[in-house]
Amino acid sequence: MEDGVAEIAPALIAALDLFGIAVFAASGALAAARLKQTLVTFAFFALLTGVGGGTVRDLLIGAPVFWVQDWRFPATCLATALLVWLTPVRIWSPRALDWFDAVGLAVYSVFGAWKAASLGIGPLPAMMMGVITACVGGVIRDMLAGVPSIILRPELYVTASALAAGLYVLLFWLGMPIILAAAISAAAGFALRAAAIQKGLAIPAYKG
Amino acid sequence: MEDGVAEIAPALIAALDLFGIAVFAASGALAAARLKQTLVTFAFFALLTGVGGGTVRDLLIGAPVFWVQDWRFPATCLATALLVWLTPVRIWSPRALDWFDAVGLAVYSVFGAWKAASLGIGPLPAMMMGVITACVGGVIRDMLAGVPSIILRPELYVTASALAAGLYVLLFWLGMPIILAAAISAAAGFALRAAAIQKGLAIPAYKG
Amino acid sequence: MEDGVAEIAPALIAALDLFGIAVFAASGALAAARLKQTLVTFAFFALLTGVGGGTVRDLLIGAPVFWVQDWRFPATCLATALLVWLTPVRIWSPRALDWFDAVGLAVYSVFGAWKAASLGIGPLPAMMMGVITACVGGVIRDMLAGVPSIILRPELYVTASALAAGLYVLLFWLGMPIILAAAISAAAGFALRAAAIQKGLAIPAYKG
Repeated sequence: MEDGVAEIAPALIAALDLFGIAVFAASGALAAARLKQTLVTFAFFALLTGVGGGTVRDLLIGAPVFWVQDWRFPATCLATALLVWLTPVRIWSPRALDWFDAVGLAVYSVFGAWKAASLGIGPLPAMMMGVITACVGGVIRDMLAGVPSIILRPELYVTASALAAGLYVLLFWLGMPIILAAAISAAAGFALRAAAIQKGLAIPAYKG
Repeated sequence: MEDGVAEIAPALIAALDLFGIAVFAASGALAAARLKQTLVTFAFFALLTGVGGGTVRDLLIGAPVFWVQDWRFPATCLATALLVWLTPVRIWSPRALDWFDAVGLAVYSVFGAWKAASLGIGPLPAMMMGVITACVGGVIRDMLAGVPSIILRPELYVTASALAAGLYVLLFWLGMPIILAAAISAAAGFALRAAAIQKGLAIPAYKG
Repeated sequence: MEDGVAEIAPALIAALDLFGIAVFAASGALAAARLKQTLVTFAFFALLTGVGGGTVRDLLIGAPVFWVQDWRFPATCLATALLVWLTPVRIWSPRALDWFDAVGLAVYSVFGAWKAASLGIGPLPAMMMGVITACVGGVIRDMLAGVPSIILRPELYVTASALAAGLYVLLFWLGMPIILAAAISAAAGFALRAAAIQKGLAIPAYKG
């Protein structure tokens, strides 16, 4: 079992990783499109949104920054920026992008927690690394674009990421095989985010 | 003497460290409270304000990031965020918080300079690490909350931090025992910040 | 030839490096001057603008942060801030500064790409490190000063940096001696930026 995991997990994780990068990069490039920016700005937004979260995670856990070591990650961001630039903005349905982003959010939360835990980092910081991996790119994108950050909206977003990352860390510490723990926790995070998208679920604000 | 310092200093420094984190985290959570945010945002603001300065310092000096290695730091931030969330904002007197913050500022400026100097970093960069440790959290908090940064206000704040950090580095390089140098320089930084709070001391602006 | 390069290059590069730092630091201090700030803010803006890009580069490539190891870099920023503070703003011609900045941009783009490539980092990430070294300081300065970022302007700026960094990486990978490759690519980046300053060259914006 563990052998199978060790063989399958890296390839599967690498594929999910490039998918997540592309989805986040597309949301960054679309923010540049809404601002009627140039191709250079498209590339800049796509890169920062696509690799921002994982970069902060790698710096914090002291790992080599993933995209500096592997050119396929920045190349994916640049290709995504070019694709968005070459297509009219109306073919990018915000609704469709929300759903891709939900998949990216769930997958990346688990991926970040997995990477941190696999380097021997404790449960609470490992869970936080999952949230950072999934959410920091969007925070940077919103800051660059000058729109209110996802962090400041009551909509369930960071919470879904925290659920996915926290559940993974819990199941992993309970001894569950990595792939099973990852699948269950990513599904749980995606389900919560899906409910938020469809039903507008939000968490209560401070009354003072 | 040096042996005593070596025994007492770590425990004392660890306690002051958690206190400083809690004070800064509270100021971050209160910024979220003023914006009528959710508990998730409270946690986010508390974490970034509480550990932001030390995180930047550790990255710059190439040390393992302190809170990734020790879960008590993020746990302190999260507990502080929950405490602020559960209490009405009016019991948090801005005046009282200013005074706690002044203690945190003085202690953290010295702590950051001490950590950098103890890793063999030279006087000027070590002093700057003290200022970064004490001030970056507040800069991030103000940026997140959309209020003018403490850096842009003429009030003596960064100056008090620079005094504490610079004096520590000077006394340490003159050969003074660490605890004595730390106590004198933290007291000097606190005194300057206290004068600024009570008398509204400010430094002159550029006339052009 | 290679020996000559090994002897001359470090001294030449160190001198260009301090010059680039000073030019960027001056542009940061002048942003503080336009905001009628205090000397502390001048120092803060000069430091972040002067060493910001190189700091991000060193963190990303896993190198010791250059100015933490060598106090002459932060000292140059602080001296520049003091110089701007002591002089009336009108003697700093925006036009002259644009030209200094153009030299800094070209030199720093090549320098960042050179440092990354010399550490064994691949072509695409190495080129990106050149752009980051040259452009991140200005992005931070504009963010601190609350003016629209250079990244969001259609003017050729990042593009000139990308040309210099990309050309250097290409020529280096083709086997050209380092100094020759650096001189050609810095000249090309400067020429493009000069054309942008003189003729207002801009790249097209997204039409949607």
